[in-house]
Amino acid sequence: MPEIHAARRALAQQGIAALGADAALITSPPNVRYLSGLASSNAAVLLPARHPGVLATDSRYAEAARRDCADLELVTERMVEPALVALAAEAGVTTLAFEAQEMTVERHGVLQALAGAPRLVPLGRVVEDLRMVKDEAEIALLRRACEITCAALGDVLGELRPGRTEREIAVAVERAMIDRGADGVAFETIVASGPNGAIPHHAPGARRMEAGDLVTIDLGAQVGGYHADMTRTVALGQAADWQREIYELVATAQAAGVAAAKVGADVGDLDAAARGIIEAAGYGGYFQHGLGHGVGLEVHEAPIIGYDRTGTLVDRVPVTVEPGVYLPGRGGVRIEDTLVVRAGAGAAEILTMTTKELLVL
Amino acid sequence: MPEIHAARRALAQQGIAALGADAALITSPPNVRYLSGLASSNAAVLLPARHPGVLATDSRYAEAARRDCADLELVTERMVEPALVALAAEAGVTTLAFEAQEMTVERHGVLQALAGAPRLVPLGRVVEDLRMVKDEAEIALLRRACEITCAALGDVLGELRPGRTEREIAVAVERAMIDRGADGVAFETIVASGPNGAIPHHAPGARRMEAGDLVTIDLGAQVGGYHADMTRTVALGQAADWQREIYELVATAQAAGVAAAKVGADVGDLDAAARGIIEAAGYGGYFQHGLGHGVGLEVHEAPIIGYDRTGTLVDRVPVTVEPGVYLPGRGGVRIEDTLVVRAGAGAAEILTMTTKELLVL
Repeated sequence: MPEIHAARRALAQQGIAALGADAALITSPPNVRYLSGLASSNAAVLLPARHPGVLATDSRYAEAARRDCADLELVTERMVEPALVALAAEAGVTTLAFEAQEMTVERHGVLQALAGAPRLVPLGRVVEDLRMVKDEAEIALLRRACEITCAALGDVLGELRPGRTEREIAVAVERAMIDRGADGVAFETIVASGPNGAIPHHAPGARRMEAGDLVTIDLGAQVGGYHADMTRTVALGQAADWQREIYELVATAQAAGVAAAKVGADVGDLDAAARGIIEAAGYGGYFQHGLGHGVGLEVHEAPIIGYDRTGTLVDRVPVTVEPGVYLPGRGGVRIEDTLVVRAGAGAAEILTMTTKELLVL
Repeated sequence: MPEIHAARRALAQQGIAALGADAALITSPPNVRYLSGLASSNAAVLLPARHPGVLATDSRYAEAARRDCADLELVTERMVEPALVALAAEAGVTTLAFEAQEMTVERHGVLQALAGAPRLVPLGRVVEDLRMVKDEAEIALLRRACEITCAALGDVLGELRPGRTEREIAVAVERAMIDRGADGVAFETIVASGPNGAIPHHAPGARRMEAGDLVTIDLGAQVGGYHADMTRTVALGQAADWQREIYELVATAQAAGVAAAKVGADVGDLDAAARGIIEAAGYGGYFQHGLGHGVGLEVHEAPIIGYDRTGTLVDRVPVTVEPGVYLPGRGGVRIEDTLVVRAGAGAAEILTMTTKELLVL
């Protein structure tokens, strides 16, 4: 769909012109993919404010680029950035915006030292800001990724029982996502059982699950470059009173966060809508991460939703809402949905439809 | 094994002192993992040249850090880099080395602007150079990753037949690696059939394999953070003369590369040992990438082996040797092993033991 990428480039060009730059050098891989359609570990786009763009990649990706990015001039070079900066200089570019959030100090030094190099100025989040609002084709990919994620979790719920290891469950659910058509996993699956549940990013290991455990599973499929992200916590055998208490607390906070995810909402207020409930119950100290984040070509992208963040939600922004309570040495609960903020609708569109009632397996 | 990480830090400290810096801020995730044992997407190590190191990570990883990195002082902060730079300034550090190859221009700007920030100087590849030479425990993880890789390829050879799609084979082989105990895949599997074989980094798609195709499969398992990398090309149905010709050429070049991978070899000479054979046969223009690369905590790491690279191989350096011939519109062949350069031994230790004879399936 080259016309989609051309339309995105036209919007980016407005941002480049507004910055007063003659052109931008796009080097962040998801930004390159977003503007060109090429998924490559070695590619860059030179996007002049008022002329067509140029894509550079090495010979490994050249055929894919010719096939998928026919509307962009192609330069086949291993050192893509110096090649495009030289091209920019030849074309009379005197001010070149670059992605300071991605460019390393070392690579920047190389470009600055090139003879006749344009003045390099930070581009800022021009492309990331465009990426925040998804079109319906992107949302369809996210929806598909979330459907696969939910189905895969359903496939392995029957295997969640005392004696199984965290690692076995993680492998099974990743395999189920691939079997169901995912292009890959969106991130390394978390399976955190019993006391490990107190570690929000626990790497699933050899611990065997026991009756009485809470088990938190954080998983996501990737489809067409788009990343799903979902977490559910279940109880094995039976749930103790303290487990039910923190589960209900997190579920209530999560629902409040989902309800607050509306067009016009401030991301700090969204965080507060969920965090306030956890704090009021006296567990504020046990919820030490932000409420959520945007999802798309990256599993964590703009907007970041936290108590110290600013920004306003708009139509067609997919985000996660994922409060948790983590009690060191005992265990934890996290509940996370991927949803899409929608204008006109009463509520956000939840893409991860797996139940959020406490499942006691 | 905290003592391993402490020994690595002691070696890194020599490099920091040799640079004239008071301390180094280690921010590259594989370098942080190498020096601390912590695998985290948000962690950094402050390593003074003559005092014990400090690890910073956020609350999500704090419990893992307390458990696995007990020999390092721990700072739990979300903004790990400013926290460690402030600590360095308090400790009287005036010259702080940083990883210019990893640090973005944006993050560097933030650190430089901190009140009382030390002078920031590039550390260079001090840690990457240490990582190049593996200890036997690291090589054992690589060996295990390669064994799983070979076994997984064996598992799916029976599925390689006309009518199956590239994507199905890629999914099957990734699943087989996980089933056989991989912690994950080392990179996205390449399955390139027929004319797609001319694209070295082809993403496996919906193309159905046909009799008469060459099919290139580039795959690797990841175990304990260590990455295997292997490529084999097979023929379906029967192999045409031109296919046998380029297969034999690449196999001969690959064997020459393996034979040249010895202690004391220059990486440019190693590349030439294989490339020269392909050039002499008139196919030099169809082998447009480097011969190989180091493997370890990253799938591509030092040393890079190419015609324009410099460096000398030493004992216990694992590398890939992977020449290829890619004929646009027709197809290609690549054959790749992961091997370990060994002192005293007559030849490198090949870790990827799958046959390199042409399999006609």
